[in-house]
Amino acid sequence: MLLKNCRFIVTQNEKREILENKDILIENGKIEEIGKNLSKKDEVVDCNNKVVIPGLINCHTHAGMNVLRGISDDKNLQEWLNEEIWPREKKLNRELVYYGTLFTIGEMLLTGTTSFNDMYFYTENIARAAKKSGIRCFLGSVLFDFFDPSKTDEEIKKGEKEIKKILELKNKRIMPAITPHSIETCSDNLLIKSRELAKKYNLPIHIHLSETEKEVRGCIKRRKRRPLILLDKLGLLKTKFIGAHGIHLDKKEIEILNKNKSFIVYNPCSNAKLASGICPAKELKYLCIGTDSVASNNNLNLFEEMKFGVLLQRLKYKDVSAMSAQRIFDSATINGAMALGVEEEVGRVEVGKKPDLVLINKDNIFLNPDYSIISNLVYSFNGAVSDVIIDGKFVVKNRKILNFELKGVIEKISSFKELF
Amino acid sequence: MLLKNCRFIVTQNEKREILENKDILIENGKIEEIGKNLSKKDEVVDCNNKVVIPGLINCHTHAGMNVLRGISDDKNLQEWLNEEIWPREKKLNRELVYYGTLFTIGEMLLTGTTSFNDMYFYTENIARAAKKSGIRCFLGSVLFDFFDPSKTDEEIKKGEKEIKKILELKNKRIMPAITPHSIETCSDNLLIKSRELAKKYNLPIHIHLSETEKEVRGCIKRRKRRPLILLDKLGLLKTKFIGAHGIHLDKKEIEILNKNKSFIVYNPCSNAKLASGICPAKELKYLCIGTDSVASNNNLNLFEEMKFGVLLQRLKYKDVSAMSAQRIFDSATINGAMALGVEEEVGRVEVGKKPDLVLINKDNIFLNPDYSIISNLVYSFNGAVSDVIIDGKFVVKNRKILNFELKGVIEKISSFKELF
Repeated sequence: MLLKNCRFIVTQNEKREILENKDILIENGKIEEIGKNLSKKDEVVDCNNKVVIPGLINCHTHAGMNVLRGISDDKNLQEWLNEEIWPREKKLNRELVYYGTLFTIGEMLLTGTTSFNDMYFYTENIARAAKKSGIRCFLGSVLFDFFDPSKTDEEIKKGEKEIKKILELKNKRIMPAITPHSIETCSDNLLIKSRELAKKYNLPIHIHLSETEKEVRGCIKRRKRRPLILLDKLGLLKTKFIGAHGIHLDKKEIEILNKNKSFIVYNPCSNAKLASGICPAKELKYLCIGTDSVASNNNLNLFEEMKFGVLLQRLKYKDVSAMSAQRIFDSATINGAMALGVEEEVGRVEVGKKPDLVLINKDNIFLNPDYSIISNLVYSFNGAVSDVIIDGKFVVKNRKILNFELKGVIEKISSFKELF
Repeated sequence: MLLKNCRFIVTQNEKREILENKDILIENGKIEEIGKNLSKKDEVVDCNNKVVIPGLINCHTHAGMNVLRGISDDKNLQEWLNEEIWPREKKLNRELVYYGTLFTIGEMLLTGTTSFNDMYFYTENIARAAKKSGIRCFLGSVLFDFFDPSKTDEEIKKGEKEIKKILELKNKRIMPAITPHSIETCSDNLLIKSRELAKKYNLPIHIHLSETEKEVRGCIKRRKRRPLILLDKLGLLKTKFIGAHGIHLDKKEIEILNKNKSFIVYNPCSNAKLASGICPAKELKYLCIGTDSVASNNNLNLFEEMKFGVLLQRLKYKDVSAMSAQRIFDSATINGAMALGVEEEVGRVEVGKKPDLVLINKDNIFLNPDYSIISNLVYSFNGAVSDVIIDGKFVVKNRKILNFELKGVIEKISSFKELF
């Protein structure tokens, strides 16, 4: 495939170059060349009116939950989980999760996300939806023992079984992750065994971390230390560690995260909507970004997330230099790839990388005038991308999803309404 | 015109009813009837897949400034104004403001805004663009004397001249407003004379208020009282008062605003991006919403503004109940109309009101599932509306602006780039 005469290419390479009027040649599932006047006989796509960016990476999702969008908007995290979400999630089944995930993926693709890092139930159904859609993802089956020692081994066994199922798919776009739920729901033993599993299969650990003050207080009371200190002591930071939220972190915890090159996923919208607080993103060297589920956001639009992400840092630190558009765009591209250990493959538009690319119409009102493409993408654009390419194949063309019929999925989702 | 079988109508009436599968009959520039099985011979529009809402009202804009989108993103308000914006605004001319405003209006229409309240220069060129587009607006020519008594009368004369020019247009959609810039740039005398002008013509006063701590400190130092107390003393709250920003207000000032039914325009994105702070919107009884200019936002998408508006209140007060989706939606509709004194005309989808209506595709991914339409509109939707009707006439149809060619305007705007 040849993307001909791209108006702008936001490379995200080391120099953060933005190229103008260049071609991108895609061959053998790789970006083969970027330059002027490249040629190819067939599959030539005119990109004269396109801004090409690396596909965005959403590092914290719960893919099945889109079916619960708007069902409860006015409760704090604990009440919201206990009274609104968990009772309804008990009614979820495999079919619901499959269609819910297709719906979720549809929203991600149409807003420029090409990879996501998920924690949910019925992982094989999420994998089935991901496979159909063509998206890239890391999937974890949520683990918790609620401090009941009789359940720990069972959970780990379940986790390992899910890993094997995903590995058996032999689909390089669908990878497993280890996802213990949080320190509020997992015993030390479950956390240690999760770490061992992550080591055994060389997979990321993805866990909720320091989302509420209550969680921190509870951890100090029960375990005599703060959450991140506990995880460090249990050796979790020696894995590819991804902590979601990371709002209530003290100086010492931030220092440990930075020293260990451990990633925090910043979820600005969800954290604000649930009144949980603002992550000290400015101080975190290893920062990626996520949306959390639509149930607490209420969308998966990473463009909106990037904007709010910058704005909240400026309010928190009362300083416009607390966060820049470039830094948050890095979080949603190269840093997301680093967090998941796939920085050699995706996150940049560079020769040798996999072609996970998003195309945006340059004549979109939000992208003009073009003093700064990055600024327009982060602060102005509403996420309505035109085309999405994953692994060198179009999965969205001119805002139409190619691998499944979105309308049918929305009808299916709507038919589930009575259940809840 | 007959909008047939509207899937949902968000009325914003007293009971905040959301009607399903009803028709809206528009005749003689009014909403004539809302009900089932209404009929009309021609101009029947199938709305089976549409959510109909009142057109949104943006209560604080600087319409000509869209040409400066993305030109400077990383300075605090004072530096940003002094070093980046004001020197560039000196280069603006009538042609630039005309095309800049068309560009601005294009963005507003395509994101569901049907009325705006503006403060800028070259007002007659803004009026000319507004007239062409079909949008509804209040326009004020910014007044400041920088405490130079020799300039005060000149400014007031200029203001009155602009009012007359706008009134002479005899276009009911284009109305004047009195817009002294701020207490930092206007003498007591200019403020008093602005009040007299507002009284004489029965027009709103629209002024920047308490946007930064510096402004408050300066006012106390120079005038021995806080900004709102000063404006109250000078009688400005006895007009249709609209204070933009209102971030740094103390309890007493909030009490005075509420007692006088005076409106504050909440500008969450601009205030966060410039690190100015968060308006105590929760405590303000008379709250409307605005985007400020794209130079500090960087868009005019009121859907994004509403979402971020709720989220910031929840963070400020550490409480999810600090602001609801319904309250912010009220701010962008009925409250905006009240602030401008046109609540009898617009802001609701109700019999007798003017038909300023926005249509959104119900099968939009962000609007599903539909547990709560208001929640989906505020927290999920990205603003890409499908159609806009102002004063009973389509001005946007299937995302195409009807009264001017957007592409040509974007090209024109881009050609100005070298100027800055």
